[in-house]
Amino acid sequence: MSYHYLLDLALILLTTKVLGIATGQFQMPRVVGALLAGLVMGPAMLNILTETAFLSQLSELGVIVILFTAGMGTDLRELRNAGKAGFFVALCGVLVPMAMGTAFGYLASMAGWLPNSNLLEAVFLGTVLTATSVSITVETLKELGRLDTKVGNTILAAALIDDVLGLIALTLVASIAGDGTNLLWVLVKIALFFVFAVVAAGTGIVLFRWMITRADGKNLRRYPVLAFVICLLLAYCAEEFFGVADIIGAFAAGLIVASTPKAQYIRLKFEPLSYLLLTPVFFAGIGINVKLPDLDIGLVLFSLALLATAVLSKVIGCGLGAKMCGFHGMECVQVGAGMACRGEVALIVANRGLSMGIMSEQMMTPIIITVVGCAVFTPLLLKMVFRNEPESTVEESTLSTPYHQADQLEQASAKFFLSDKK
Amino acid sequence: MSYHYLLDLALILLTTKVLGIATGQFQMPRVVGALLAGLVMGPAMLNILTETAFLSQLSELGVIVILFTAGMGTDLRELRNAGKAGFFVALCGVLVPMAMGTAFGYLASMAGWLPNSNLLEAVFLGTVLTATSVSITVETLKELGRLDTKVGNTILAAALIDDVLGLIALTLVASIAGDGTNLLWVLVKIALFFVFAVVAAGTGIVLFRWMITRADGKNLRRYPVLAFVICLLLAYCAEEFFGVADIIGAFAAGLIVASTPKAQYIRLKFEPLSYLLLTPVFFAGIGINVKLPDLDIGLVLFSLALLATAVLSKVIGCGLGAKMCGFHGMECVQVGAGMACRGEVALIVANRGLSMGIMSEQMMTPIIITVVGCAVFTPLLLKMVFRNEPESTVEESTLSTPYHQADQLEQASAKFFLSDKK
Repeated sequence: MSYHYLLDLALILLTTKVLGIATGQFQMPRVVGALLAGLVMGPAMLNILTETAFLSQLSELGVIVILFTAGMGTDLRELRNAGKAGFFVALCGVLVPMAMGTAFGYLASMAGWLPNSNLLEAVFLGTVLTATSVSITVETLKELGRLDTKVGNTILAAALIDDVLGLIALTLVASIAGDGTNLLWVLVKIALFFVFAVVAAGTGIVLFRWMITRADGKNLRRYPVLAFVICLLLAYCAEEFFGVADIIGAFAAGLIVASTPKAQYIRLKFEPLSYLLLTPVFFAGIGINVKLPDLDIGLVLFSLALLATAVLSKVIGCGLGAKMCGFHGMECVQVGAGMACRGEVALIVANRGLSMGIMSEQMMTPIIITVVGCAVFTPLLLKMVFRNEPESTVEESTLSTPYHQADQLEQASAKFFLSDKK
Repeated sequence: MSYHYLLDLALILLTTKVLGIATGQFQMPRVVGALLAGLVMGPAMLNILTETAFLSQLSELGVIVILFTAGMGTDLRELRNAGKAGFFVALCGVLVPMAMGTAFGYLASMAGWLPNSNLLEAVFLGTVLTATSVSITVETLKELGRLDTKVGNTILAAALIDDVLGLIALTLVASIAGDGTNLLWVLVKIALFFVFAVVAAGTGIVLFRWMITRADGKNLRRYPVLAFVICLLLAYCAEEFFGVADIIGAFAAGLIVASTPKAQYIRLKFEPLSYLLLTPVFFAGIGINVKLPDLDIGLVLFSLALLATAVLSKVIGCGLGAKMCGFHGMECVQVGAGMACRGEVALIVANRGLSMGIMSEQMMTPIIITVVGCAVFTPLLLKMVFRNEPESTVEESTLSTPYHQADQLEQASAKFFLSDKK
């Protein structure tokens, strides 16, 4: 019986938290701290932590729960209200990075920068670049007092849709990569999965309502448990019967649960499962798995070029979308800059590519550098493009409310339970 | 990349919950349902679930978290207030079952009922019988309106101490079994672990107080994370440096965290981690691992005899302790009957013995039958011994308060977060 996993977990939790707090001080997201923790403790530097079968299995479960939580956080009714601007910004903000990322990867492969690379890997690299992470932008805009503006609201709306479009892109690319022989059959299976998910949604919601009418107000634990069962089953069925990535199934399950009456309670109960165990293990695991090759000048240049492609493609794509919807000049750039940051989903997609054997290990370092680089530069970029602008707020901004409420909710809940001891 | 673990987890969560609710209808604890779920789904019956490396590692982490949570639920200040009666009932209620269990195991082995058994296994069987599970008694006494009586309070007090004494017994027996060559050295190492735990407690509490003074009231997640780090480190150090079981280290960490100002908040955050993943996997895992041998008449008789020994030894031991403290006649029997039930800790100790190679696999079936049997008979026994007694309540019963509050707290928290959607 081995107990060494206890030390592994303790070190992962401690270092991700400490470095997460440290990066938080520099207004970078916690995920950057967790990545660094893995890099520092892993074979790349101190070599204290190495990957074990248990850690990598926990990581897999972690990414399921992360996507499930993301799904629960996506309110489909809000998507409908996101408006034309949000939709076009998101759409162009997915298509342009996808195209530019693919072109960049392909050209780099042609130029011999990436040995053993192929078109599929280039397409996957494009997919990695599709998903925006909006948390840094939200923090920065809050600080600048511009979250409740027309630009701020468009960014929030687009970021909501962006996640869904990015995952659709992943579904297509990963399914084609998994069973590329018959494109039509792949599309049919994805469509069937969609039908299956809708049926599951109907069943799940009916089941929840039935349980709630039968319930006596006690035994609330059954709701999160049932939600998790739905998540795991959809993730399993996605892979087993439809050739769709399990994380897509988990995201779909999250969307379903978000439509049930107990959604907020369930989401609250998944938070500790995430931050006490699964999320740190997943993000530190990405850092641990990085094998810093002989970090030659070529890889550094490639990483910087990828970072530039990532930022530029979003600024161009989202700016274009904004332009199409009547934004002018500086506003288009502001929307683009606000959508430039990448984060969790990029890493999750990359990791998926790695475990499918489509992405090579050597690609992970540039992607991590891109994610960290985006986190560092986005606040600077935003402050630059918002300089010398009068503050203006729009009325009836429902989209930013959850971001303002998040802190309050946590604090209120803490006060509620801590009143006995101080 | 295998995704089959998703289906395993979904089935475990679903069946443990459904059977847990079903057994709950019969006033049996949820753990019985979880055990049955494992038995039904495992190789013993349907053979749908089998043990995997991931599940057994999750189980190990699960038992760490269960003991950590148990430690957090043990308020050392309440132990001090438990009084003479509580202490003597607990002490005799540990010593007598330990002795009777050992004697029973040894005699059974002598009589040839248990092939390949030895004295060490008999002592371990005695250790399994030491720990009371009080939840069924609490429920039954609540229903009978006798929780706030002198007898009810003595049972609650004794059950608090009983857990600690039972774990001390496990520490001694497991350490001796692990390094039996030098008893003195084993005792020195246990004493050193105690010193280490006290130093860790001091450090941990100072660290918490420092963090709280520095904190701005936000970022509350760091407290549960730090608590978990302390738990994992103590569990690791217990094994690595002191030859003490990791679960004892986790329990000690729980006691430490219970003395910090954020104890209740931290405990609340560990609940979902437990019931959404680790606890179902652990208890179902015990059921899954049961290989029903050719269930011969000998094993059935042995199981029933073990069940009788378990109940009788607690009634005799605790009754004796109560007698020593001035309880008379029927009251002694009531205290003894209230302490007779076994549960989680018995299974955890048995599982520990199994993984240390001290207990044989054939012993798990009788122990599971004993735990389930106790859960079935305790309410009947209690109703019998409390029959025809006038209700009488004592004043200032602080010990039963948490049991009354537990439901209210969960419901209040639910109302708090569900006010938005109905």
